[in-house]
Amino acid sequence: MATVKLMTDAEAEAIPAVKAVFDDIRATRKSDFINNFWRALAFDPALLKRTWEGLKAVMATPGTIDPMVREMIYVAVSTANACQYCVHSHTAQAKARGMTEAQHAELLAIVALAAQTNHLVTAMQVPVDPEFQV
Amino acid sequence: MATVKLMTDAEAEAIPAVKAVFDDIRATRKSDFINNFWRALAFDPALLKRTWEGLKAVMATPGTIDPMVREMIYVAVSTANACQYCVHSHTAQAKARGMTEAQHAELLAIVALAAQTNHLVTAMQVPVDPEFQV
Amino acid sequence: MATVKLMTDAEAEAIPAVKAVFDDIRATRKSDFINNFWRALAFDPALLKRTWEGLKAVMATPGTIDPMVREMIYVAVSTANACQYCVHSHTAQAKARGMTEAQHAELLAIVALAAQTNHLVTAMQVPVDPEFQV
Amino acid sequence: MATVKLMTDAEAEAIPAVKAVFDDIRATRKSDFINNFWRALAFDPALLKRTWEGLKAVMATPGTIDPMVREMIYVAVSTANACQYCVHSHTAQAKARGMTEAQHAELLAIVALAAQTNHLVTAMQVPVDPEFQV
Amino acid sequence: MATVKLMTDAEAEAIPAVKAVFDDIRATRKSDFINNFWRALAFDPALLKRTWEGLKAVMATPGTIDPMVREMIYVAVSTANACQYCVHSHTAQAKARGMTEAQHAELLAIVALAAQTNHLVTAMQVPVDPEFQV
Amino acid sequence: MATVKLMTDAEAEAIPAVKAVFDDIRATRKSDFINNFWRALAFDPALLKRTWEGLKAVMATPGTIDPMVREMIYVAVSTANACQYCVHSHTAQAKARGMTEAQHAELLAIVALAAQTNHLVTAMQVPVDPEFQV
Repeated sequence: MATVKLMTDAEAEAIPAVKAVFDDIRATRKSDFINNFWRALAFDPALLKRTWEGLKAVMATPGTIDPMVREMIYVAVSTANACQYCVHSHTAQAKARGMTEAQHAELLAIVALAAQTNHLVTAMQVPVDPEFQV
Repeated sequence: MATVKLMTDAEAEAIPAVKAVFDDIRATRKSDFINNFWRALAFDPALLKRTWEGLKAVMATPGTIDPMVREMIYVAVSTANACQYCVHSHTAQAKARGMTEAQHAELLAIVALAAQTNHLVTAMQVPVDPEFQV
Repeated sequence: MATVKLMTDAEAEAIPAVKAVFDDIRATRKSDFINNFWRALAFDPALLKRTWEGLKAVMATPGTIDPMVREMIYVAVSTANACQYCVHSHTAQAKARGMTEAQHAELLAIVALAAQTNHLVTAMQVPVDPEFQV
Repeated sequence: MATVKLMTDAEAEAIPAVKAVFDDIRATRKSDFINNFWRALAFDPALLKRTWEGLKAVMATPGTIDPMVREMIYVAVSTANACQYCVHSHTAQAKARGMTEAQHAELLAIVALAAQTNHLVTAMQVPVDPEFQV
Repeated sequence: MATVKLMTDAEAEAIPAVKAVFDDIRATRKSDFINNFWRALAFDPALLKRTWEGLKAVMATPGTIDPMVREMIYVAVSTANACQYCVHSHTAQAKARGMTEAQHAELLAIVALAAQTNHLVTAMQVPVDPEFQV
Repeated sequence: MATVKLMTDAEAEAIPAVKAVFDDIRATRKSDFINNFWRALAFDPALLKRTWEGLKAVMATPGTIDPMVREMIYVAVSTANACQYCVHSHTAQAKARGMTEAQHAELLAIVALAAQTNHLVTAMQVPVDPEFQV
C-alpha cells in the first residue's frame, strides 16, 4: 500500500546504518516497537537518520513544553494537514503520555474552532490589527 | 482590503444585536479592544453572535487544557491552514497569557517537525500500524 | 510584488496571441476591465490561452448551476486553499452576479462549518458509513 | 479505525445527553439513520451537542441559499480540505436533495478549476486589483 | 468506494465520446491500461475529455522540463494537497520514467524540508525581502 | 509585521551562535545577503542552527537531483501550502540557478494541473489501482 517497501527487522539487521537508528529508537523510547513510519523511511538510511535525529531533538529532549502537550500540538498540525497516519500515531502517543478523554475532546474543540475561524478570516480577508504587530 | 466592511464602534452602537456581542467581548476579556475579526463578522449579527458564543465556550471557559496552551494549539492549526491574521492574533494572545520566547521557539519547532513528517508520511503512504488503532 | 511581470495593455497589443485572449475576455465579459490574474499569466501566451479557455468553458457557458452559485462555490474552494486574490476576485464576481449580504453571510457560515467538521472528522478518523457508498 | 470509539444505539440510550442529541438528529432529519460522525463525537456529549446545534443552525434552518446548494458548497470545502468522510457524506446528502449527475459534474469542474487558478495565483503572487476592494 | 461509478471497458465501448478518449489515452501512452481516475471521470464525457486534453497538453507534450521531473513535481504538489491516489499514481509514473530510489529519497527530502520551512515562515509571518521582488 | 523580531547584522554579531550560522550561510552561498527568514529564526539560535543545517544538507549538497530542479520542487510545495514568502524566495533562487521563462511557465502549468486533478480525485474518491501498489 505504501510507495516504498517497509523494512522488516531481519532486513534492518543487515544494514548497519538502519540498524543503528532502529536501535536508538528502541533505546530512546524504551520499547521494542518500531512503527511503520520508520520502516518506510529506512529505504534511505541517510533520510531515516536525519529525520529521526530531528524528531528526537524536538520531541524527546527536555524543554519548556510538556511532552503530552507536544503530542497534542502534533495532532493539531497533522489534522490540519490531513495526515491520517500522523493523526493516528500522535493521538496514540498523546494518550500514552496521559491525555484524558476530556483533554482529547477539548483538543478537538480547539482544532475545530480554529479551522472555523481560519476560514472565516480568509473569506473576509480581515486586515491585521496594528495591536497584534510585534 | 476586507471583502466586508469593518464595523466601527459608532455603527455598532446603533445595532443592538451587534452592541450586545461587542459588550460581551469587552466584559469577557476585561479589555476595551475589539479586534478586526469581530468588526468584520458584525456585518451579519447572527453569524457574529454564533461565532463569538462558540469561541467563548471553547477558549474562555475553564477546562482541562491551560489557556496559554489552548492559544498555542490555535496558532498551530492557523499556521497549517495558512491564516495570516489568525497567526498574528493568536500568537499575540499566547504571549499575553505568558508564552515565553523559549516556548514560542519550541512551538514553532514542533509545528515545523509535524509538517515535515506529515509530508513524508503522505508521500510514502505509510499504512497505519494495528498498534495505533483504538 | 508578483513573481512575474504584469502585462500592460500597450505590451499586450504587440503580442497577437495575448491580444487575442484579452480581446476575448473583454468580449465575453462585456467589460473593458482585464484583472491582474490575466496580466500575470500573459507572460506565457500558451498558458494564458489554455487557462482562459478552461475558465470560459466552466464559468461562462450556460449549464445546470446558476452563475452566482458557481462564483460562491469558487469562493468556498479559494477560501479553503487560502488564496487571497481568488477570494477577493470571486467574492466581487459573486456580488456582481447578485449575491446579497445575507447570502454572503450564509456562504461564510457554511464554509466555516464545513472546515470545523472537516477537522473534527480528520482528528477522529471516522470510517465512512456503508450507507454513503455508491 | 477511528481514534475514538463509535457509540452504539444501546450505549447512547444509557447517556441522556447523548440520547437527546440522537433523538433530535432523527427528528430533524425524519430518518432513523445516525451516521458515524455523530457516533464518534458522542464520546464527549458537550462537544456532540454544540456541534449538532451549530450544524442544525446552518444546514437545517430555512435561509437564503437552497439546501442542495448548501451541500454542494460543503462538498467543495471538504474536497479542498481533503476530508474523505465529508466528501462521501455531503455528496450523498447533495444527491438526496436532488443533485443530478450533470450538476455533480459541473460542481467537480468548478472545484477543479478553482484549485487550478488558486495555485496559479499563489505561484505568481498576483496583487489584488483595486477594483476588487470593498 | 468512489462517489461516482467507475466505467468498465464494456460500458465505455457503448459511449462514443468516452471510447474516443479511452482510445486516445491508450494510443498516447502506448499501453492498454486505463487507470481508475479516467474510469471515474467518464461519468461525464465532456469533463473527461477536457481533463484528458489538459493533462495531455502539459504532461505528454515535449517541453522544457524533463518528463520524469514533471512527474516528480506532480508528486510534490499531490503530497502537499494530501491526495493519496495522486501520490500513488504519479510516484508510479515517475518510477516508470526512470526515477531511482536515490532520486525518490531526495524528492521526499525536498518536499519535507519545504513543508517544514513553509510552516516556520507562516508561523513567523516573515516579510518578503525586497531582493526577491521582480 | 512578523511575529518575532528580525535580527540585524549588528545584533547577530553579538551572539556567537547566531553569528556562526550567518557566517556559514554567507560562506555556503558565496553571497553577503542574509534573507529575512534567517533573521527571523535567529530569535532562537538552536532552532536557527538546526533549520539551516537541515536545509544545507538537502539543498546545498551534491545529489541526484539538479539544483535548479530542487528549487522548482520547492516552489511547487510552497505554492500548494500557500506560503507567499517561500514562493517568492524559491522562485528567485530557481531563476538564479537558470530557470528560464519557458520553464517557469511549464512549472506553473504542472502545479496547476496537479491541483486540478488532486481536487477531482478527492471529490470522486477514486480507489487506488492495484497496478500502482509497490
